[in-house]
Amino acid sequence: MIQYACVFIVVFTTGLCSRVQAQEAKKEKYVLVVHGGAGAIARDKITPDQEKAYKAAVTQALQAGYQQIKQGKTSLDAVVSAIETMENNPIFNAGKGAVFTNEGKNELDASIMDGATRKAGAVAGVTTIKNPIKAARMVMDKSNHVMLAGKGAEEFAEQMGLEIVPASYFFTEHRWKRIQELLKEESNKIELDHDNKQSSLLSNTTDRDKIGTVGAVALDKQGNLAAGTSTGGMTNKKFGRIGDSPIIGSGNYANHEVAVSCTGWGEFFMRTVAAYNVASRMNLLNKSVNEASEDTIDEIGDMGGTGGLIALDKNGNYAAPYNTSGMYRGMITENGTVEFYIY
Amino acid sequence: MIQYACVFIVVFTTGLCSRVQAQEAKKEKYVLVVHGGAGAIARDKITPDQEKAYKAAVTQALQAGYQQIKQGKTSLDAVVSAIETMENNPIFNAGKGAVFTNEGKNELDASIMDGATRKAGAVAGVTTIKNPIKAARMVMDKSNHVMLAGKGAEEFAEQMGLEIVPASYFFTEHRWKRIQELLKEESNKIELDHDNKQSSLLSNTTDRDKIGTVGAVALDKQGNLAAGTSTGGMTNKKFGRIGDSPIIGSGNYANHEVAVSCTGWGEFFMRTVAAYNVASRMNLLNKSVNEASEDTIDEIGDMGGTGGLIALDKNGNYAAPYNTSGMYRGMITENGTVEFYIY
Repeated sequence: MIQYACVFIVVFTTGLCSRVQAQEAKKEKYVLVVHGGAGAIARDKITPDQEKAYKAAVTQALQAGYQQIKQGKTSLDAVVSAIETMENNPIFNAGKGAVFTNEGKNELDASIMDGATRKAGAVAGVTTIKNPIKAARMVMDKSNHVMLAGKGAEEFAEQMGLEIVPASYFFTEHRWKRIQELLKEESNKIELDHDNKQSSLLSNTTDRDKIGTVGAVALDKQGNLAAGTSTGGMTNKKFGRIGDSPIIGSGNYANHEVAVSCTGWGEFFMRTVAAYNVASRMNLLNKSVNEASEDTIDEIGDMGGTGGLIALDKNGNYAAPYNTSGMYRGMITENGTVEFYIY
Repeated sequence: MIQYACVFIVVFTTGLCSRVQAQEAKKEKYVLVVHGGAGAIARDKITPDQEKAYKAAVTQALQAGYQQIKQGKTSLDAVVSAIETMENNPIFNAGKGAVFTNEGKNELDASIMDGATRKAGAVAGVTTIKNPIKAARMVMDKSNHVMLAGKGAEEFAEQMGLEIVPASYFFTEHRWKRIQELLKEESNKIELDHDNKQSSLLSNTTDRDKIGTVGAVALDKQGNLAAGTSTGGMTNKKFGRIGDSPIIGSGNYANHEVAVSCTGWGEFFMRTVAAYNVASRMNLLNKSVNEASEDTIDEIGDMGGTGGLIALDKNGNYAAPYNTSGMYRGMITENGTVEFYIY
């Protein structure tokens, strides 16, 4: 009985909040939140220069997306612009800077979802598309499909006029060194890009190795939400492994109420259907974005998984829980102020 | 206030039901439900011989899975056995009998999930694995991954000792004729395997063309649930399109409470995260398997999507809603009686 009494109070309070925030939304409230991966980011090992580089990269992403929304473009435009800058920046494991597979290739995945229409697009296992997030958007906008994979996805992107690059474009010295070290150590070992436990087995991993997937969630002036996620997956991955990033519902999801982008040990985010898990808790249990996001990360943690997510609701409230030691993330609102956090 | 009063009643009633059904479960209650695709199955066009063939195929699948459970094996074993028979039967669009892509290939997808552990496995876009459902199970049991795609998945299956066949094994005359007709009619037309609207554009489609994805959900003597799904996707699909069948949360999902397998216009099942959608409604809203399944199909219908699903709860209650003209489906319980339905 006490529990039900609580439900009444919560519903009532949320009702009040919604009205207050709806008024704020009329004052052109808009928000963009990005992440650059969750993982084992040791406070005592990250140098001031490294921290500065991540802050600069996150700030660049936020400002690129912010300009889109400020100019009246959509949350989808903001998400694509923000992620594009991160895909082009070799410090993230997405686009240029992606980790190498066991076969010495860079296989990229990305997805996007439009909260207003619940249309979605994704590409998986692509090796020649400069900006996979743009290809995901093309799949959503210009095909009848949600997900295209491999060579087929590359052909589609080329037909759509997207920039195609030689596979060597994605080469970065630090990722190449890392895969060579791993292959030497144990050819069968799969280093999970974000996994503390497995990473700790590798004495010579650097903080740079652990930077993961990138993602963005945005609320535009029209009150519409969008979410995008892009990744190079796991270092030393084999057998055409696809993680959660291109899976609608797992690594990415958006509807009228919330937009979610995840990063972490992909298999656990797939098994818990993490992004839609957050949305369901909000939609069906009337939980706040904060509660819903934390409950989902707790569910992943209980299962043994690690990672984090960013979630943004229709009123501009956001959450960014993680169960790793850190998650690179930042946010910008209509006043243009950038916030950046690692821990 | 009235709404909340209702909640109390529902919770109370469900509580009583659960106890009654839990006692039944102790009497070795077990159930297997399979589907052979939802689509435009016209009552006046299906011949008695065709109906007989589907009934025989569904019965074979049910009996194969039933034997597993009867012998004390798991719901996972039952799901694999049932789907294996359907993959080997050319009347279904899965395994042998899969539809052709625009390039004249058979690209297969499959997934499986263990409700007891929420472990999952999937393969996508494979062309040489005789039984993709077995490969999905190997991914779950023998790798750290959930999803493997393309050549990598095939290599993995081969290393695991699964039967590899030449691509020509999947050739069937009726599917080949169909793709040739389609390519002639319009090289760019994508015929959705289950879509009434698109199929109606094609005057010469046969009922056989519309038989879709296969799936199975099982409850074993230990009270554990499992779900599996296998497909050849859409006739004339292009660009490495992946549908909902290999996507955990969309085409397939299982937990302690419910197991779900979907069939239909995959893109809509991906956008609504259909299989997990059913599970969420049950878990978070305490809805029955019937209500939750129907609500999900309604959500897909509201969005413009077509298809169906089978869902089985931990007490052996099942639902099989669809918004197409028919869905091949059948069920068997511990007494060994087979039921078969199309409409």
